[in-house]
Amino acid sequence: MAQVRPGPSRAARGAMSLEALRYRRGSLRVLNQLLLPQRSCYEEIGGVRQGWEAIRAMKVRGAPAIAIVGCLSLAVELHGGAGMGQDKTGLETFIRDSLRYLVTARPTAVNMARAAEELGAFASQEAQREEATAESLRESVIQWAEAMLEKDLQDNRSIGEHGARHLLQASPQDKVTVLTHCNTGSLATAGYGTALGVIRSLHALGHLEHVYCTETRPYNQGARLTAYELVYDHIPATLIADSMVSVAMKEKGVSAVVVGADRVVANGDTANKVGTYQLAIAAKHHEIPFYVAAPSTSCDLSLAEGAEIVIEERPSQELTDVNGVRIAAPGIGVWNPAFDITPHELITGGIITELGVFCPEELRAALPGAVKGE
Amino acid sequence: MAQVRPGPSRAARGAMSLEALRYRRGSLRVLNQLLLPQRSCYEEIGGVRQGWEAIRAMKVRGAPAIAIVGCLSLAVELHGGAGMGQDKTGLETFIRDSLRYLVTARPTAVNMARAAEELGAFASQEAQREEATAESLRESVIQWAEAMLEKDLQDNRSIGEHGARHLLQASPQDKVTVLTHCNTGSLATAGYGTALGVIRSLHALGHLEHVYCTETRPYNQGARLTAYELVYDHIPATLIADSMVSVAMKEKGVSAVVVGADRVVANGDTANKVGTYQLAIAAKHHEIPFYVAAPSTSCDLSLAEGAEIVIEERPSQELTDVNGVRIAAPGIGVWNPAFDITPHELITGGIITELGVFCPEELRAALPGAVKGE
Repeated sequence: MAQVRPGPSRAARGAMSLEALRYRRGSLRVLNQLLLPQRSCYEEIGGVRQGWEAIRAMKVRGAPAIAIVGCLSLAVELHGGAGMGQDKTGLETFIRDSLRYLVTARPTAVNMARAAEELGAFASQEAQREEATAESLRESVIQWAEAMLEKDLQDNRSIGEHGARHLLQASPQDKVTVLTHCNTGSLATAGYGTALGVIRSLHALGHLEHVYCTETRPYNQGARLTAYELVYDHIPATLIADSMVSVAMKEKGVSAVVVGADRVVANGDTANKVGTYQLAIAAKHHEIPFYVAAPSTSCDLSLAEGAEIVIEERPSQELTDVNGVRIAAPGIGVWNPAFDITPHELITGGIITELGVFCPEELRAALPGAVKGE
Repeated sequence: MAQVRPGPSRAARGAMSLEALRYRRGSLRVLNQLLLPQRSCYEEIGGVRQGWEAIRAMKVRGAPAIAIVGCLSLAVELHGGAGMGQDKTGLETFIRDSLRYLVTARPTAVNMARAAEELGAFASQEAQREEATAESLRESVIQWAEAMLEKDLQDNRSIGEHGARHLLQASPQDKVTVLTHCNTGSLATAGYGTALGVIRSLHALGHLEHVYCTETRPYNQGARLTAYELVYDHIPATLIADSMVSVAMKEKGVSAVVVGADRVVANGDTANKVGTYQLAIAAKHHEIPFYVAAPSTSCDLSLAEGAEIVIEERPSQELTDVNGVRIAAPGIGVWNPAFDITPHELITGGIITELGVFCPEELRAALPGAVKGE
């Protein structure tokens, strides 16, 4: 396990940027985010089983990163010789079974389910080509997963640019102050980030005044991960408790709220980390624009509205214990939904995708055919 | 240090109820709430210095309890012979100096400042009586502090009854579900509690369906203390993160929000634990009545509106560390206001006092002359 220390100066680390995962053909390593910010350890993912476990245990999290780690864990297992000696039909079955298994690790994020569906369909199509062999199928699937990694990085940079431009056009100030929730940065994606990508773009353009990031209970992704990324990139930022959002909006000149999404459905309703709904209500009350930043792969037009999304409930220990130490009174009941649904009418700024910024009502028409299931 | 274990059955503990402090003449012991819920330790408060330290370190917290512990710490020091040999003028000076010092331990809660003012004035009046001696002055001040303890307990029971009746009249349901924030129970008062007193009264009447309590970051008073009291009293309750309030309101049938107050000013604006403002916004959005429960001694008519209240900022470690373990990324900036202001127009249910339940606009007229400074 490699160790890196947080917060080196920009000069010392050169162009190195924070990475949730490190991939080269045949090798996948993920940063164990459970150990942040105390330790930065990259752990080897040798195949699908370890990929599933890393996702389930939340060593890697964030909807885009989950899908990428899932698919790359399959690519690594295939490169290592999985299904060797099978014919192309046997290998196709192995690929589809592996993908179905990976989806079960975290049910709410749509990206892994969509990637599984697309990659599964792609594998079937490849296997059906007359000239295809088990080996050509293996190579095609590995290349598909590698292309996905590349595309996510490009999409995030586009999201950052579109979002930064929109926020600046909407703001009377030259420099904007952004409030964000959970972690949507390099640690949640292939790199750069979605909501945090918008913040990175604003900072790079010299138009970022300040960032407020919530600690994001119960799992503290904001305090542990977003704060870590902000310090790492020398972005001016302040950590607040989730309960301080409204008073920060009232007193600290917040220009906009930008959050990520685990799933955006056809009418624009958005599932994201629990607390997002409350942020949107507070933003509305203070007349602050509220943005969702997500790649089009996080959009799921198969569902008409947010009420159809199944919300994952996580173990009560996430709320009652911190680092293995019991905080809450013994015997108390706990409710721990991992996500909540923000209705589209509260997404007043827009939905920022790699294709541009859209009102919730415009989203469906703007998405490419593949996302629409065409 | 005596140890008691949490959550014995009602039969096993008989009529014993949870106590933030145990007083008999000459002896004051306070439950060190920093150690809850792991350990229940009562610590001896031998005088004013230890009273100040217990308040400052938040071993005891909650606006009413702070004032009571402050005054009783003076009573104990007087009973132990403080100022012995001085004449009544010297003793009066000692009393007034001690009270001024106690006010500095936590500046936002008005109760200690008011108690210091009232007890100081009472001591001066007593000292000026011709037949008064140092010994009679000493005895009078001790009795004043003891009467304060008694009155708080009675007031809380009245708050509980008035509040329960009002909530039930306002609700179409026979049983109500209440959401509360921070700790306002036996551990924040002389006993029974303010907002939690309303919940106790509803439970005693058989009209309480369920309680949702927030963990109340950053100091976790809800998870540690309110949850402890609710389990102790076998009240059906669920702990949620502060960020889950809005989704709980949407999905769990919350009938009303009831919180305490550190200070209510003339127009009804209320300073309370940070996060209260956000709760009130969420309640308004969901059309759920929002109540503040506080004794008239928490009302401060010397201030016209909430903007005049000075908000205490607490150390950043409360947010970045839990039980001495660093949670947040090193190097991140922190903002940690202890309280926020809820504007009176968001207090849609009413202000519950020992005198009855009032709209914010009615409050001023309803308060007794002493509170008005008449």
